[in-house]
Amino acid sequence: MKYPQSIEQLIESLRKYPGVGKKTAERYALHTVNKFDEDAINQIIEAYQKIMTEIFFCPVCGNITDIDPCYICKDDSRDKATIIVVEEAKDVIVMEKTNRYHGLYHVLNGAISPSNGIGPDDINIKSLLERLKDEAFKEVIIATNLNNEGETTARYISRLLEGTGILVTRIAHGIPAGGNIEFADEITIFKAIEGRRKI
Amino acid sequence: MKYPQSIEQLIESLRKYPGVGKKTAERYALHTVNKFDEDAINQIIEAYQKIMTEIFFCPVCGNITDIDPCYICKDDSRDKATIIVVEEAKDVIVMEKTNRYHGLYHVLNGAISPSNGIGPDDINIKSLLERLKDEAFKEVIIATNLNNEGETTARYISRLLEGTGILVTRIAHGIPAGGNIEFADEITIFKAIEGRRKI
Repeated sequence: MKYPQSIEQLIESLRKYPGVGKKTAERYALHTVNKFDEDAINQIIEAYQKIMTEIFFCPVCGNITDIDPCYICKDDSRDKATIIVVEEAKDVIVMEKTNRYHGLYHVLNGAISPSNGIGPDDINIKSLLERLKDEAFKEVIIATNLNNEGETTARYISRLLEGTGILVTRIAHGIPAGGNIEFADEITIFKAIEGRRKI
Repeated sequence: MKYPQSIEQLIESLRKYPGVGKKTAERYALHTVNKFDEDAINQIIEAYQKIMTEIFFCPVCGNITDIDPCYICKDDSRDKATIIVVEEAKDVIVMEKTNRYHGLYHVLNGAISPSNGIGPDDINIKSLLERLKDEAFKEVIIATNLNNEGETTARYISRLLEGTGILVTRIAHGIPAGGNIEFADEITIFKAIEGRRKI
């Protein structure tokens, strides 16, 4: 026995989201039927429609956007000598929330991961190099994640930029603000010691 | 800083699902942009549209359906003397999977929960009573959940049916198949002892 076809279809669709199994998708689908009014469902449909028709990757920086170029790339007040390289669009949001960085970004849309078959050509590295050729960048800050993929990607990019005269830096890793040393993992501890500064 | 409006709209919509916080909704929305092709998004949109236009509650039993009456109520081969009362549509699916029950169902669409302001009139009890008046039911099996709400609802319904001549039963609760007594909670253990049978 199954649910009506439209509900089965929604369950199958929602299962494609990361971490959503059959039970969770079923709960979401039934919640849709039981709790969402027509307005709520129309909101969702409209959002998906607009994402399909309006959202694309900024041809300059790779960030997700609905204007070309994205609002960061088109903002003349930003520092055009510095670029932060991140893996995902959400990393840009996180950085922007600090309100302390006013340079540009480059979104790789992934990280090099040989075990998952993701090589340098599968992420936005070529467009980064093109950008760095054309424009007067002085510093590239690599802010990929602190894991195998992120570290591999950081090393790969820094090697590519050797001899270009561009300063390549890596964001600091260490004990987070409010973080207790006792609960930090070994890699974080190691990075915190390695990155120590004179006080 | 925010995402493009359509992405923010999808995040807000998805946050309405149970257990979905801002971070999870964000992950789903970005997954939509990064991983879903047009076909996948169209599938989702179509599912929501059909749910909005085709799905309703069976006027007989309260189950969710896209035909009137639902395919269980309209199935002449089913035993029309027995009815299982459940809280949710998904409970019907679970029961049907056993392939051992061939009677009818009544879906309450909730359970009595005074602390959440849900009284008997807020769930499909009235329609159950109507049904039992009209038709020749011999047994009502109450399969609400084993918690305060489910137990309250079960007692409420059984009291309403006192003196009608209809046999009111409650499904058995106890140690599940393959379940280890050591890991069972107290209520399950208590119910298992209370429901003991001669061997």
